[in-house]
Amino acid sequence: MPQNREGRADRDGVQASSAPFWSVIPAGGAGTRLWPLSRVAKPKFLLPLVGERSLLQETADRLSPLAPAEQTIVVCGAAHAAAIARQLPELPESNLVIEPMPKGSGPAIALATAIVGLHDPEAIVGSFASDHYVEDQDAFVRAARTAIAAAETDFLVTIGLTPTRPETGYGYIERTDDVLVRLETGTAFRAASFVEKPDLARAMQYLESGRYLWNASMFVWRARALLAELERLQPELYAGILRIAEAWGTEAQEAELARTWPTLPESTIDQGVMEQARAVAVVPAAMGWSDVGEWHGLGTLLRRDDHGNSLRGNAVQIGATNCVSWSGTDRLIALVGVDNIVVVDTQDALLVVDRDRSQDVRQLVRALQAAEQSKLL
Amino acid sequence: MPQNREGRADRDGVQASSAPFWSVIPAGGAGTRLWPLSRVAKPKFLLPLVGERSLLQETADRLSPLAPAEQTIVVCGAAHAAAIARQLPELPESNLVIEPMPKGSGPAIALATAIVGLHDPEAIVGSFASDHYVEDQDAFVRAARTAIAAAETDFLVTIGLTPTRPETGYGYIERTDDVLVRLETGTAFRAASFVEKPDLARAMQYLESGRYLWNASMFVWRARALLAELERLQPELYAGILRIAEAWGTEAQEAELARTWPTLPESTIDQGVMEQARAVAVVPAAMGWSDVGEWHGLGTLLRRDDHGNSLRGNAVQIGATNCVSWSGTDRLIALVGVDNIVVVDTQDALLVVDRDRSQDVRQLVRALQAAEQSKLL
Repeated sequence: MPQNREGRADRDGVQASSAPFWSVIPAGGAGTRLWPLSRVAKPKFLLPLVGERSLLQETADRLSPLAPAEQTIVVCGAAHAAAIARQLPELPESNLVIEPMPKGSGPAIALATAIVGLHDPEAIVGSFASDHYVEDQDAFVRAARTAIAAAETDFLVTIGLTPTRPETGYGYIERTDDVLVRLETGTAFRAASFVEKPDLARAMQYLESGRYLWNASMFVWRARALLAELERLQPELYAGILRIAEAWGTEAQEAELARTWPTLPESTIDQGVMEQARAVAVVPAAMGWSDVGEWHGLGTLLRRDDHGNSLRGNAVQIGATNCVSWSGTDRLIALVGVDNIVVVDTQDALLVVDRDRSQDVRQLVRALQAAEQSKLL
Repeated sequence: MPQNREGRADRDGVQASSAPFWSVIPAGGAGTRLWPLSRVAKPKFLLPLVGERSLLQETADRLSPLAPAEQTIVVCGAAHAAAIARQLPELPESNLVIEPMPKGSGPAIALATAIVGLHDPEAIVGSFASDHYVEDQDAFVRAARTAIAAAETDFLVTIGLTPTRPETGYGYIERTDDVLVRLETGTAFRAASFVEKPDLARAMQYLESGRYLWNASMFVWRARALLAELERLQPELYAGILRIAEAWGTEAQEAELARTWPTLPESTIDQGVMEQARAVAVVPAAMGWSDVGEWHGLGTLLRRDDHGNSLRGNAVQIGATNCVSWSGTDRLIALVGVDNIVVVDTQDALLVVDRDRSQDVRQLVRALQAAEQSKLL
């Protein structure tokens, strides 16, 4: 992205950041609720779930107008590094940060921010999940540009999704009426608080109020601002992250990572920093977002026939309605007279689930774990 | 079976026939409603659907107290002869009658009867489908012994199943109150008429009346009696069958079968003979019978867990109820939160069907036929 160092709105009325922008993509988590398609070895972000490209590739595509590949960092586990390197051929090798072991989003995002911040404390860093879906790319870019401009104030900024249903599966961000930044691309409000997953009654209140946004883990901040809050709130994590970041790009990188990373406390960036941070803003946005969290949700993103069915691969139906079938084999899938179910066929496992019970696939995966059926995980 | 040539009731009060008894098992029909398990190459009767042995083997087992293997004839298509020969190792090779092409049950059962009748016109012949299930073996034998005794009167005798529900998928036999034969093993009534598959209102009347029995294609007659009716009702078929039967066991057998069989008119034994025969009797019986016609019906025969599920093979369920899963592979089948569905997994095709729509599997098979997906049939 060409930088407009003057910090003024450009001719399109779009505020261009005066500091360089870096994208961070934490690529962790398997997405157990999409079993049997998502597996430990083939997590959700590596799969082409909605379109032809994987969710990770779509995330990188989405961020490409904001930051070039040279200013994109992907944080992942060792098991997925090769697949990610192949899926994102333009990503510089040194921009792939490989965690020795998972420690949660807190250390992952903090390290990426510190690596940027040690070279340019003024840089703006945005972190976006690797395995979410966004329908409206333009709306995403507008929201991101608004958040980048708001981050120039040294607030920690989130993009909060305007809820479209009383969802009980997500955390929410309550906004105030205090406008921090208002641009043609959107508005950043001071945030009131982060709130945990609500029950249904509360979720309906949130939906009606218009003041609660879904927390989709989209964060934008100045590197210096995040590191300052990390030092205040999680000094132990801060110290470790800083040691690793200082060694980054030197010959001590591997040794320092191997020595320090295992000692870091596990945490999420939400609970470890954002929920306790002093100056948080939120940019409300609607962009057709989905966390592609389970089969029902994924089903709503796929093209449907006249009977509400999304049949992918070699499939045939007689009198089926509102079904999703997902074939990972050459086998024919035949649906007869069934309604509202999801069928997922893979080489070694077959799932048949009621769409309204898609969340329970997680229970199934736990049962397989308990039964030590690790080949199927 | 040791024959009691005196024709009197033996010490158990069981009427023993004074003429030798022969079993005929027509083994035709694929059972398309049990797709994808039943296929053209692997029809229903070759499959171990309920127990460990195939329906054909269970049929032969069921008939073994009535006729030894030497007095059992199986009529089949060429494609299944080898499999049948292996499944029934005690069946003499000459007792396997191989049709050059399918012509319906009429020619098949008539030829077997004629082969027996040319050597012993007084012999009693019973024909029983190869792909039905009987729960109560003793009840079956009692009914068969009653029918055999009744056939000594030269009536054509059917065993009619006491209906247990207002079934619209079967034909019925209406009985009169005229008792032809009453034994301790059961009663043969003169039949009033054969009636076609009824609508639901009529089926409910049939159930209430107590005078209508399901036609399960269980027929018992003296060879001479059947052949006389065949000559009267279907003279062309009779003449052809007789020519083949006369050549049977001679060196002209193959040539005569190849020459005459293709010229025979297609017919069912029900419509071609029984429905128009002069003297028909019916033995009402209850024996836990099923034609194993579709997946729902098969599901009721399988052992269920506390949630009404019958899961066969490598399967796991979370919150599933009243489901049937049938695994023909090593793949894990996982059912989550679904109710009242059947899942059938094979190497090349997977079926998911609502149990109450099991009949519609036939539509699916027709659609595959229309699409010339012959590999899947």
